[in-house]
Amino acid sequence: MGHTSESTPTVLALSGGIGGAKLALGLYRILEPWSLAVVLNTGDDLIHMGLHVAPDVDTIMYTLSAENNTELGWGRAGETWSFMEQMGRLDGDTWFNLGDGDLALHVRRTELLSRGVSLAEITAQFYQAFGIHAHAWPMSDDAVRTVVQTADGRTLPFQNYFVGERCEPAVSGFSYEGATTAAANQHIIKALADPGLRAVILCPSNPFVSIAPILSVPGIRDALAACQAPVVAVSPLIGGEAVKGPLGKMFQELGQPAKNANVLSHYTDFLDGFVIDDTDGHEADSFGLPTLVTRTLMKSLDDRDTLATQVLAFADGLGGASAREAAGSGG
Amino acid sequence: MGHTSESTPTVLALSGGIGGAKLALGLYRILEPWSLAVVLNTGDDLIHMGLHVAPDVDTIMYTLSAENNTELGWGRAGETWSFMEQMGRLDGDTWFNLGDGDLALHVRRTELLSRGVSLAEITAQFYQAFGIHAHAWPMSDDAVRTVVQTADGRTLPFQNYFVGERCEPAVSGFSYEGATTAAANQHIIKALADPGLRAVILCPSNPFVSIAPILSVPGIRDALAACQAPVVAVSPLIGGEAVKGPLGKMFQELGQPAKNANVLSHYTDFLDGFVIDDTDGHEADSFGLPTLVTRTLMKSLDDRDTLATQVLAFADGLGGASAREAAGSGG
Repeated sequence: MGHTSESTPTVLALSGGIGGAKLALGLYRILEPWSLAVVLNTGDDLIHMGLHVAPDVDTIMYTLSAENNTELGWGRAGETWSFMEQMGRLDGDTWFNLGDGDLALHVRRTELLSRGVSLAEITAQFYQAFGIHAHAWPMSDDAVRTVVQTADGRTLPFQNYFVGERCEPAVSGFSYEGATTAAANQHIIKALADPGLRAVILCPSNPFVSIAPILSVPGIRDALAACQAPVVAVSPLIGGEAVKGPLGKMFQELGQPAKNANVLSHYTDFLDGFVIDDTDGHEADSFGLPTLVTRTLMKSLDDRDTLATQVLAFADGLGGASAREAAGSGG
Repeated sequence: MGHTSESTPTVLALSGGIGGAKLALGLYRILEPWSLAVVLNTGDDLIHMGLHVAPDVDTIMYTLSAENNTELGWGRAGETWSFMEQMGRLDGDTWFNLGDGDLALHVRRTELLSRGVSLAEITAQFYQAFGIHAHAWPMSDDAVRTVVQTADGRTLPFQNYFVGERCEPAVSGFSYEGATTAAANQHIIKALADPGLRAVILCPSNPFVSIAPILSVPGIRDALAACQAPVVAVSPLIGGEAVKGPLGKMFQELGQPAKNANVLSHYTDFLDGFVIDDTDGHEADSFGLPTLVTRTLMKSLDDRDTLATQVLAFADGLGGASAREAAGSGG
């Protein structure tokens, strides 16, 4: 596919779904075409009704192409729902909504996978079809599945927890099935080793179920630690809660304060800079690494562009692995 | 499934899609609930985009449940088309239209087949979900596929000929792949041997591509020949053409006059009575078996009911296999 070689990306963004997608969109909007590569979480993929559904892969695609459904907050704008109505009549699963147009992605993805086309290649084809001029790299072509352990002793595939049970069960832990034997998408590993790389941004996504699955794939965490470009994380917490999603609740259930320090603790081995919201400015002293305190709440498109611009400028002022080593040797 | 044993059917109708479905609907409307069993052609089933699509099975279902799309002449009433629009963007196949709601049948059928549920059982579930009080029996759970040989030396799966090439290629023959090893649906064999059976009706369907696939399944033709109930065929020709579909063209391309006698020739070994349209009344003398000449064109619901009533009354006046044997021994 010619488009993946249109140019080498200069900014790598790791993102989960909705929340992370906002900053990914800001980065996409302010950067030159093909300068951005988004590393996509496939830990919440599921085989549903025999179809391979990749929620985060598609959320980022709908967001970057401005075809996301802003009313629902997920899925495709202008969606219709005839499929689900009929599926209900046929006693099919209806706990996981699939819009009519959205379904084309899952049917086509499943068909192409069955012919031996890789998830990476399929994703590149889909993003191209949606007119997106950014690289989009699923973390692995192999299945890595986020599993939620609940306080009542169950293990739930992520979507069963997230959609099926509306995040209601208290969590006691997480695992990433298949991770130990999964192969990282080599585009990611190469980009992280590229001396021309400008920055790596961890979008404001859930550390447990959006970023951790990416980091669980062998080689990615090490490549981040060795990356010469600055690595910056934007915290998804604002005042102890995620804008959307169960992160605040998860911290509580795990017996950890829902503080930015506890987000940071997931990334200390590779992070060069941290970005938190104004609301939490008082927490910044304790981090022990450069921190940008700014408005991280993104309501408008302008908010997305502004935060993206600020985060990149912040990253540009930081060193990468060399600076980390220097800081380490000096500490 | 309790519903298949609601009662033993008294009338068996063999039918293809659109044309045959009209008479099947008439029979369904005038008979008591569960008195009708429709034997369904699966010769034009296809695996499309990885999904098992069964056009005739679904056409009869939409027709009997009055959910058929009368504007299009096929598919589901009130259909939406988001799926196909999006599939087109993704470079997926678009030559075979699948409506959004219709798609639920194919996704669910494929899912259940992959779990080992039989096509017969799935069909019974679907018809029940659509509130239909008739038995619906796919001719076989095994794949039997109608293949069209063309004058230019190609072999086309039926839907590629019918939809993909709009019946344009001249045909030179037909085959039914998989037929020799397929097992007939045993409900059909049992019903044909049931002394309580009142009549068997061949609906006005294409003999080559709707009825022949059913007859190609080992055991069904013999069971028809042995059937004690009268077997009556309604010719799909009116004035040398089918109301819809390529039958007239097929006869011409095969070098056979598009005459009712050439429809009849497909069924002589088991037929007790023949029904043709008023237009062709002059052909009736040559058939050598009881023939009802009436209006077979079905435009209104009343037309469907009237023809169904007439055909059943006609059958009631005929004998079955015993009469055929007597006629044979006397001839």
